[in-house]
Amino acid sequence: MFEFVRNLAHEHEQVVPISVFVAILCLCLVIGHLLEENRWVNESITAILIGGVAGTVILFLNKGKSSHILRFSEELFFIYLLPPIIFNAGFQVKKKQFFQNFITIMLFGVIGVFISTSIITAGSWWLFPKLGFFGLTAREYLAVGTIFSSTDTVCTLQVLHQDENPLLYSLVFGEGVVNDATSVVLFNAIQKIDVSRINSRTSLQLIGDFIYLFSTSTALGVTFGLVTAYSLKTLYFGRHSTVRELAIMVLMAYLSYMLAELLDLSGILTVFFCGILMSHYAWYNVTESSRITTRHIFAMMSFVAETFIFLYVGMDALDMEKWKMTRLSVGTLMASFGTLVFLILVGRAAFVFPLSAFSNYLNKHPDRSKPLTFRHQVVIWWAGLMRGAVSIALAFKQFTFSGVTWDPVNAAMITNTIIVVLFTTLVFGFLTKPLILCLLPQHVTDTSDEGQGSKSPKEDMTLPLLSFEASASTNILRAKDSLSMLIERPVYTVHFYWRKFDDRYMRPIFGGPISSPPEC
Amino acid sequence: MFEFVRNLAHEHEQVVPISVFVAILCLCLVIGHLLEENRWVNESITAILIGGVAGTVILFLNKGKSSHILRFSEELFFIYLLPPIIFNAGFQVKKKQFFQNFITIMLFGVIGVFISTSIITAGSWWLFPKLGFFGLTAREYLAVGTIFSSTDTVCTLQVLHQDENPLLYSLVFGEGVVNDATSVVLFNAIQKIDVSRINSRTSLQLIGDFIYLFSTSTALGVTFGLVTAYSLKTLYFGRHSTVRELAIMVLMAYLSYMLAELLDLSGILTVFFCGILMSHYAWYNVTESSRITTRHIFAMMSFVAETFIFLYVGMDALDMEKWKMTRLSVGTLMASFGTLVFLILVGRAAFVFPLSAFSNYLNKHPDRSKPLTFRHQVVIWWAGLMRGAVSIALAFKQFTFSGVTWDPVNAAMITNTIIVVLFTTLVFGFLTKPLILCLLPQHVTDTSDEGQGSKSPKEDMTLPLLSFEASASTNILRAKDSLSMLIERPVYTVHFYWRKFDDRYMRPIFGGPISSPPEC
Repeated sequence: MFEFVRNLAHEHEQVVPISVFVAILCLCLVIGHLLEENRWVNESITAILIGGVAGTVILFLNKGKSSHILRFSEELFFIYLLPPIIFNAGFQVKKKQFFQNFITIMLFGVIGVFISTSIITAGSWWLFPKLGFFGLTAREYLAVGTIFSSTDTVCTLQVLHQDENPLLYSLVFGEGVVNDATSVVLFNAIQKIDVSRINSRTSLQLIGDFIYLFSTSTALGVTFGLVTAYSLKTLYFGRHSTVRELAIMVLMAYLSYMLAELLDLSGILTVFFCGILMSHYAWYNVTESSRITTRHIFAMMSFVAETFIFLYVGMDALDMEKWKMTRLSVGTLMASFGTLVFLILVGRAAFVFPLSAFSNYLNKHPDRSKPLTFRHQVVIWWAGLMRGAVSIALAFKQFTFSGVTWDPVNAAMITNTIIVVLFTTLVFGFLTKPLILCLLPQHVTDTSDEGQGSKSPKEDMTLPLLSFEASASTNILRAKDSLSMLIERPVYTVHFYWRKFDDRYMRPIFGGPISSPPEC
Repeated sequence: MFEFVRNLAHEHEQVVPISVFVAILCLCLVIGHLLEENRWVNESITAILIGGVAGTVILFLNKGKSSHILRFSEELFFIYLLPPIIFNAGFQVKKKQFFQNFITIMLFGVIGVFISTSIITAGSWWLFPKLGFFGLTAREYLAVGTIFSSTDTVCTLQVLHQDENPLLYSLVFGEGVVNDATSVVLFNAIQKIDVSRINSRTSLQLIGDFIYLFSTSTALGVTFGLVTAYSLKTLYFGRHSTVRELAIMVLMAYLSYMLAELLDLSGILTVFFCGILMSHYAWYNVTESSRITTRHIFAMMSFVAETFIFLYVGMDALDMEKWKMTRLSVGTLMASFGTLVFLILVGRAAFVFPLSAFSNYLNKHPDRSKPLTFRHQVVIWWAGLMRGAVSIALAFKQFTFSGVTWDPVNAAMITNTIIVVLFTTLVFGFLTKPLILCLLPQHVTDTSDEGQGSKSPKEDMTLPLLSFEASASTNILRAKDSLSMLIERPVYTVHFYWRKFDDRYMRPIFGGPISSPPEC
């Protein structure tokens, strides 16, 4: 008789895994908080380790059958977890730095992925058979290249400080976003391409598609951001209910992502630019309490999604089914894993240092704040060595059918991906804080303070973007000083005219404070 | 070649329905905002009507095949939509009124559901065959009783004002929550009970189970609330990151619901009491910005979930498959629908008026603020006539298998439920504002101001519970005036000692401001 409310929990098998995941997420938060001041560990490492422990416990409870309670689905990842992370990235990014370094970011994020993919594809194609690991097709080698070219920069961003190293932070951060988009787009391109007939025409077409995709996705995101800002400004929802303006912002952001996917564009880019536009205009059109709420809502959703992903990776590491299914000797598996890590190191070095030099050459003006020193380049190189959720998601998409595979070669690649993600996140992540402290010694001060959403709550509560406003107007004044300088520094010129245009036409329509006019 | 990012949208069939739903939700928000000052329409009616229009459009696009794009699943409803609504209810409720009227609320919410279920079951059992509607089993008649006894008080709460009619508001609101829990528990009990052998022993056992369930569910919710408050207070997450304290509150609330379901308790009651405890203790242990954020986050989630449900109901109304499958003549269907509405009216009248009289008798003390007048009773009766999401969810659970049915009798019951929900929400909901304005004329003032989260944003931004604090301490002072009064008014006495206990033991441990001690 006590059993009469059994229905929900027992008819719907999702209840148990959701409960377990939510409980472990809570544990992660508490432990992450307690380890906050530790100089080695960061949030991702904590989550992976806790996930590993939880996986072990579940493995024992299941009597060695399986360590995971939720099958990994790219659907869950691409529909629910990735959009809030990327939107929050756009919403909280310091726009001035991002746009000033736009060219360098695009170099790293687009050209870099192409270079890295080529090197990893060629290297694994050449080396894997020598290690006794056969069975991958040409398309799969190309997929491996993109899978291991998508970086996870969350770890590094938790260590780099936006205020202390604005240049590095914006480069690493911006590259991370563009890189995510590029690798997903490239991965999908490889699924459709006729591998046997790659020539210069198809390559050109590929590049054309990329430009089309980047521009339309960006335009869609900008449109969504502007529409949201305009409707919030004209309707002024806050008059009746702050709840509506919050809901509109959240729903429109999500809609932009989904619509981009429906229109075969890159949802990641769309939602990123939607976030930028929303924080630039829409954010100023809502009530005071909604401003505070949106900033924290988005940061929280992003944080929970990230933690969830790392937790999952940790939990899935002990997936015995896949380990047993690989049929490779431990030696071969370790050799292929070592090869992949080596190729990742080389592939990244192959574009970071040349492209940094190229970027320094492009910006070779006496009064540019500072060029990318060798130390900076090493940090950028290191920051992109971690592999994360996007790699896992792409690997599952390539080598499994809804998370299940019975093929030993596919199982080996999944296992390899998981080991690479674990290794790079744990080992490289572990060394990141000491490395940055060693290379950029000014970081010694104030290590307890961290990136987005984790500053002293009073400080950043009300004025998240004013620092940007202030520095922008300083730049304008500086820019006005000499016309020759304006001609020499195209980025500043663009920025100056953009500010003028923004103040005169955009802000009156879409909202936001008008910065002090350059005339006075 | 332009198709190479097709994968996500076309492999995963959820993208289209999610996009459509999110887009329509946005539309609902905008139209709801524009109609805010209209005296007839409310949010639920808007959502149902828009859902109906969207359903018609989809019906035409599908060439008359089907009007819905997402199958109704009780899973979606019970796992994702209901918890935020109920948690927010607990989080925003004015606790003083709720606990002072606790006995009356329990009378309405528990005894009332039993009376209403009996009348609807008996009435439909007697009348349906006379109308030519055969084929329901004894268990199904019992299920029909509970399905149509679960009220939806959202509509009325949007019209009643917590500040103007605290007594009525807390009664209607409290009944709504307890009623939800009771009807779900009763419904599940009916699934397990041996219908052929109902005697006094099984009835007593049922009542015993109810008491066990109510007390354990409440205890679980209270425990979760206290654990959250204690950990937030001792660990002080805000020191490093406001994101973590937000995440902890959201995740713990959700975990309490899921755990209650896993333990075969009532998740609704658990998450409701968890919400009460969190707003009473945990809320004071977080940073200023998190306080603002939590209040708006929860209100927004609840609002979106409610709108989503009504939208869905409107969309599902035109589900042609079920309409065609009923095989009943329109006359019989309308007659059975009319019977159900009549039984709902009678069944509710049969407990509201007697139990109100009983409640007045219990509280028959000269200085009780005021008894429930006949007008109040009519408002309470009317407020509970609307049928909503819980009815639909239970009907789908009883009469379909994961949203699909091929049986004409079951299809007829589903259709009946949808018509009843539409009719009661639209017609009764439409008349609610005028009725309340007519019965309680003080409402004429300030009709633009509404319930939770929709007050002037500045006013309620920082001090959501202080009005409660202030009035509580006034009560304590009043209560101290005469010892005889304390003995005569057990609720006030309990409240007085609770305040003392709270200030001396609970608040120092779990957080929150200590009200001015009664001594001074």
